[in-house]
Amino acid sequence: MPLRSVFFVSDGTGITAETFGNSILAQFAAKPRHVRRPFIDTIDKARAVVDEINGVAASEGKRPIVFITLVSDEVRDIVTSDNCRGLVLDMFRAFVEPLEAEFGIKSNHRVGRFSDAAKSSEYNDRIEAINFSLAHDDGQSARNLAQADVILLGVSRSGKTPTSLYLAMQHGIKAANYPLIPEDFERGKLPGSLSQHLAKCFGLTIDPERLRQIRNERRPDSKYASLDNCRYEVREAEAMMRRHGVSWLSSTHKSIEEIATTILRDIRPDRLIY
Amino acid sequence: MPLRSVFFVSDGTGITAETFGNSILAQFAAKPRHVRRPFIDTIDKARAVVDEINGVAASEGKRPIVFITLVSDEVRDIVTSDNCRGLVLDMFRAFVEPLEAEFGIKSNHRVGRFSDAAKSSEYNDRIEAINFSLAHDDGQSARNLAQADVILLGVSRSGKTPTSLYLAMQHGIKAANYPLIPEDFERGKLPGSLSQHLAKCFGLTIDPERLRQIRNERRPDSKYASLDNCRYEVREAEAMMRRHGVSWLSSTHKSIEEIATTILRDIRPDRLIY
Repeated sequence: MPLRSVFFVSDGTGITAETFGNSILAQFAAKPRHVRRPFIDTIDKARAVVDEINGVAASEGKRPIVFITLVSDEVRDIVTSDNCRGLVLDMFRAFVEPLEAEFGIKSNHRVGRFSDAAKSSEYNDRIEAINFSLAHDDGQSARNLAQADVILLGVSRSGKTPTSLYLAMQHGIKAANYPLIPEDFERGKLPGSLSQHLAKCFGLTIDPERLRQIRNERRPDSKYASLDNCRYEVREAEAMMRRHGVSWLSSTHKSIEEIATTILRDIRPDRLIY
Repeated sequence: MPLRSVFFVSDGTGITAETFGNSILAQFAAKPRHVRRPFIDTIDKARAVVDEINGVAASEGKRPIVFITLVSDEVRDIVTSDNCRGLVLDMFRAFVEPLEAEFGIKSNHRVGRFSDAAKSSEYNDRIEAINFSLAHDDGQSARNLAQADVILLGVSRSGKTPTSLYLAMQHGIKAANYPLIPEDFERGKLPGSLSQHLAKCFGLTIDPERLRQIRNERRPDSKYASLDNCRYEVREAEAMMRRHGVSWLSSTHKSIEEIATTILRDIRPDRLIY
């Protein structure tokens, strides 16, 4: 794609405009230039931004994309007028205003109350979940497993750690993870600390060939990374999960987000709000 | 607000629908119930979801809010028809389609690119960034700091770890973090391993009273958590960052997302697009 600029124009910090705009732009392989214009809260500032947008439109030969979060009608009218040569995308008019009508309440933005996320209990739950998941990464601790929402099992490098952290960060889920290692296979069963929590165990498996690639980047030409060893570990891990009735999925062709979504659906569909 | 449900309906994982929906809902003090319905990719599944939405509308006496990301016209038509008694908010029709027309390219969602996310180099960069950030959490390793994109500094419990992981997971940023501790204050300067990388250092500070609360939950009634000690550490940390010319912000009233946005803006405005 040729050079293209995206403006984030807001009467506040612009964080909402950016978060929103990025969620839309993430749908495209395009890599536009970002221009942030916060605190546009007067008619004069709005006119100056429109001049800037029109200047960029002329110099790039393409109209800029303009994400706006502007509450004042006077200011918004200037940016959305025909005189502005950007493609203006207005989150408030499209979605927030219909919801204000539906809920019968004003949005935080409109009443000038910047969300103080850091004080909400939901936010603190997320931070606590991240700390829990870090403390229970890679089988580090068998303490407080009763508090875990999910315990991920799988061989080393099957994707447990990023999935645990994603579940914690995005969904406030306390996700422990436990690596299945040759000692477990020789013993032929899961450690006792896990066997009391089978209902919240979920397994990750992976194609042995892909596992070999990943491990080889870490420890080239090791026994750990050899295809034979990868095949052995994956086979034993799947057999063990089957024996214990632990459901699992393969991370080979799945992103963290897809794995997390599947786990949430299977383990606890609706309990958690994040 | 009385009980109200929000549905996230998608033909994929629903991650986009959720991210988008949450950015809108964050504008309201409301705490609706979340219902995720991923993988709605057939007419039959769409009809079942509409039945469910209508059931909730009847039982709650309020129409549910329904955020959708549905590519297939057949499936979308069912959910957006008059027969569905939800308030349907369609990110694709409102914003993604105008951008597809403007850019002259199809969105990733539409071409199904998400499904092989695990193979993309961007995805692998994110996983690598997560591993890097974990290995460099809490000053664990001074090795390879040259590879870090960002190094976060701050006293214990100022928010470094969740911010580092968020930067890695969401933006593919290799974020190390280093805790400023009393030994650093007595020495009066940053360790040599950091002083060569000041340009990518960024500080987090925090209100001492808030810090006391957070630490007290971890180690009640300890010297570590005492208000005097929190005041001392925060004052010394800020003085040290000032001496080294490291810019910082306060995490007291900011969410991880807001902190991350500010860091990205200040440290590397245009290299990384997220």
